[in-house]
Amino acid sequence: LLDGIGRNDRMSLARAITIVENDLPGSAELLRGLTPGHAHVLGFTGPPGAGKSTLINAFLRHVIAMDKQAAVVAVDPTSPFTLGSLLGDRLRMAEHFNSESVFIRSIASRGTLGGLSGRIIEITDVLRSAAFDYIIVETIGVGQTEVEIAGLADTTIVILVPESGDDIQAMKSGIMEIADIFVVNKSDRAGADAFANSLRTMAESRSGDEWEIPVINTVATEGNGIGELFEKISLHRHSAGFTEKHIHLLTEKVYQLIRNNRMKDLDREELKKRLAKAARHSGFNMYAFAESYPG
Amino acid sequence: LLDGIGRNDRMSLARAITIVENDLPGSAELLRGLTPGHAHVLGFTGPPGAGKSTLINAFLRHVIAMDKQAAVVAVDPTSPFTLGSLLGDRLRMAEHFNSESVFIRSIASRGTLGGLSGRIIEITDVLRSAAFDYIIVETIGVGQTEVEIAGLADTTIVILVPESGDDIQAMKSGIMEIADIFVVNKSDRAGADAFANSLRTMAESRSGDEWEIPVINTVATEGNGIGELFEKISLHRHSAGFTEKHIHLLTEKVYQLIRNNRMKDLDREELKKRLAKAARHSGFNMYAFAESYPG
Repeated sequence: LLDGIGRNDRMSLARAITIVENDLPGSAELLRGLTPGHAHVLGFTGPPGAGKSTLINAFLRHVIAMDKQAAVVAVDPTSPFTLGSLLGDRLRMAEHFNSESVFIRSIASRGTLGGLSGRIIEITDVLRSAAFDYIIVETIGVGQTEVEIAGLADTTIVILVPESGDDIQAMKSGIMEIADIFVVNKSDRAGADAFANSLRTMAESRSGDEWEIPVINTVATEGNGIGELFEKISLHRHSAGFTEKHIHLLTEKVYQLIRNNRMKDLDREELKKRLAKAARHSGFNMYAFAESYPG
Repeated sequence: LLDGIGRNDRMSLARAITIVENDLPGSAELLRGLTPGHAHVLGFTGPPGAGKSTLINAFLRHVIAMDKQAAVVAVDPTSPFTLGSLLGDRLRMAEHFNSESVFIRSIASRGTLGGLSGRIIEITDVLRSAAFDYIIVETIGVGQTEVEIAGLADTTIVILVPESGDDIQAMKSGIMEIADIFVVNKSDRAGADAFANSLRTMAESRSGDEWEIPVINTVATEGNGIGELFEKISLHRHSAGFTEKHIHLLTEKVYQLIRNNRMKDLDREELKKRLAKAARHSGFNMYAFAESYPG
């Protein structure tokens, strides 16, 4: 299986992902056997209706033209990639479903709001061990998802539209914190320049010495601006802070793995049973209970 | 300090909350010394603009009229309670700031989107040990926050407005899963009845044998519907599934406490340093690294 993954064999990849997604027997051994390749993991996030999928399609066309390989993981329940993998490749958006350079997988989100699957890190790791140049993770940009995608992707691309201006006040800081690159899609619409400019002002105040957060205008349906996006993504990978960011993300992931390992033995049902009994006594204190558990 | 908390002494409460919120020395001892009283913890959640704060104000008026005591914890960054505690009591909404029956505290949200503070459970527990009848936690209803508030409150009240109809499809399941009570606020607006009816149909399909999720029409600015809300909250507390739900929530909380205890010794900076070194070697595998850490 590991061999097949290394060769980008579709069947091996699909099987391996199913194993880690559902934590089937052999999952832990499989993960311990992975050797990360050179893939650049890109997070594409933004509100519903921003045209994330159309943009990804245009990006994939560029990837194919450059003779590169890409994998797409769609976690957004409204994504045509997700729908496409359910309905087959009959949708207009799923034009790359049968391409040999592109591997597409949609996975169930943890919550109905498009939160990331609990196994997204492991799934991405399987793909990292294959021979892809790019791994694209598409998520809906609401709430905590943003923090999660930023913890997963080497480069996070936040996609907005001119109309996002009204929402941006509410989302501002959340989005500012995770974006390595901003895209203003549907830039042929009214208000695009004004919106891009106000975004640029925000981006400047956030940019560090090591990376100036760019704001790119695109019209994904026409393929406009995709070349520039491609270029900025590549520039980000080679920017000064990139390795530091990578180690930071790795630390978060390994921290979670260690935490999972340490909690593996704890049976929630057993805990619940004992709590139901203990909580009946007056003077019950959950902090004292937790400290002495399973005591 | 514990003594002061039991007497609802404002200074003691404020100090105790500051200690647990910032995990200052003595925090663990303080928490272990708490003895939960009889407070009913209410989660008020919903999208910005639904009138959560106005509704809470109207509810507080009712509480005061009944000669009961209430504490409000505002985690919503757009809440006038939160603004009020920053700006003083000059805001119209904060009419209860100086009431002896009401204690108001606003706490910083973890993320800018209004996620719950990492210490909200502990803060609520301090208030649970005081002599309040109601503890109201106000949060903005986006993304993962919903799951968090449902894990904290004995009774979760989801506040919507007639205009929420458009968003409800996207949020539907998330909200359906956590609501014990629905409120359609601003019910004097057009479309209120139609919206309440469609909400009722949804609520019915979710209701179990033990609790039928009610949909209440309110006009918080006029105080309309607050009596009914008060009554349903009380009914929910005495419903058949309430104790079971309480034990379920307690289990989640104690699980998290145990997890925190088990991870207390792990120094992230040390982990990061060792990862930075290990990741340089080809063949580095984070799963193997995590399993043998600190090795």
